[in-house]
Amino acid sequence: MNSKDLIYSGKAKNIYKSDNSNEVIIEFRDDMTAGDGERKETMKKKGYYNSIISAKIFKVLEEKGIPTQFIELIESNIMKSKKLEMIPIEFIVRNIATGSLVRKFPIEDGKKLNPPIVQTDYKNDEYHDPMLNDSITKALGIATQEELDDLYDLSLKINNILSEYFKDTGIILVDYKIEFGKDANGNLVLGDEISPDSCRLWDSSTLEMLDKELFRKGKDEKVMNAYEEVFNRIITEEDKKNWNL
Amino acid sequence: MNSKDLIYSGKAKNIYKSDNSNEVIIEFRDDMTAGDGERKETMKKKGYYNSIISAKIFKVLEEKGIPTQFIELIESNIMKSKKLEMIPIEFIVRNIATGSLVRKFPIEDGKKLNPPIVQTDYKNDEYHDPMLNDSITKALGIATQEELDDLYDLSLKINNILSEYFKDTGIILVDYKIEFGKDANGNLVLGDEISPDSCRLWDSSTLEMLDKELFRKGKDEKVMNAYEEVFNRIITEEDKKNWNL
Repeated sequence: MNSKDLIYSGKAKNIYKSDNSNEVIIEFRDDMTAGDGERKETMKKKGYYNSIISAKIFKVLEEKGIPTQFIELIESNIMKSKKLEMIPIEFIVRNIATGSLVRKFPIEDGKKLNPPIVQTDYKNDEYHDPMLNDSITKALGIATQEELDDLYDLSLKINNILSEYFKDTGIILVDYKIEFGKDANGNLVLGDEISPDSCRLWDSSTLEMLDKELFRKGKDEKVMNAYEEVFNRIITEEDKKNWNL
Repeated sequence: MNSKDLIYSGKAKNIYKSDNSNEVIIEFRDDMTAGDGERKETMKKKGYYNSIISAKIFKVLEEKGIPTQFIELIESNIMKSKKLEMIPIEFIVRNIATGSLVRKFPIEDGKKLNPPIVQTDYKNDEYHDPMLNDSITKALGIATQEELDDLYDLSLKINNILSEYFKDTGIILVDYKIEFGKDANGNLVLGDEISPDSCRLWDSSTLEMLDKELFRKGKDEKVMNAYEEVFNRIITEEDKKNWNL
């Protein structure tokens, strides 16, 4: 990619222009950050694992009828995607209570949540991503109630699909964060990534963490082994052949 | 009241047992607190103004079909009320953006909100009253969706009634906090108080503050004049006769 085509550089991904104006090229970098961006490290192969895991999960979701931004994997860490106008909301779906939820509310760490909790946080660095409610979201002009209803519905459908999918690979989907955007036709589409950066994933037998939480807890030496483990469990021989891995 | 009958002592009110087990006696004290209880002062006649203003507003609401805890004013600062099992949620309704809302979100101070914002905060001192969403409220077992829907509906009906009511006395109802409980039959009933402690009230012409915000801003010498002004605008000669004021 040409640096003059760079549209946006986030904490772990670069977005580049594509020849097709309805598409973008997403580069998954090896950068890892935590604590509102306060800590930043380079983790070798992180971009590789996250782009391929995301591509695979987006494919799984597409097959079940969820619209995603994914078009194809161009290189192991580079994804061709639909260009989306992103909605600045993080949809956080929780199947087990842990993390910020148990720090902010009197709820037991590890408690199963059925139905899951869905939380919306406003993506806004200056205001430190405050939690929203629908009334505030609408007053801020971020989304309409109709859009919110569709996005909650998509978030829960994605939860059902991925909880089953991970379960079959011996992984518990504890919680995850997803983001949506609108495509050129105004359709709501799943964007960003779904990876060990954006999910809490626990081994079903040992309850070992297989995600970025290891980095947040300072166990940096274990992080890439965990990402590799997720990769190995979900990427098939056919995927490797298709994507020249 | 007999101190042995004290059921609960809050930041500004004491609740006592009544002879009737479905009722309680609420004493409005002269205490004023701010900043999560960090600052506390005694303000002469505050209990008097707040109990009478609350009684009057509850009467206005009852006449418009809103169920409230109010039964009668026994003394100028003592209210006989229905005994409620309180729901630990503050329903905050905002017609104009100000205060914590503009600190937490990028929204202009003074902006009119139409429709109003409704926010629910969890009454929990240990966790510093965190903002809820319905999904979290249900997971914590605080209320059901049906109850929440009814309480949102009541909160907005109360907003319509009181915005009009205050407007007729030359006051803008900027925002307010209300709390609900269940009576002996399980009915949802407006409880606590509605007073310059729990509302932001601005003079319609001068936009002068007529509420507790003056105390939060350290303008202690102006606070009771403001409460007296609200009292004078809403308490009629008939009210004074009825309540022996």
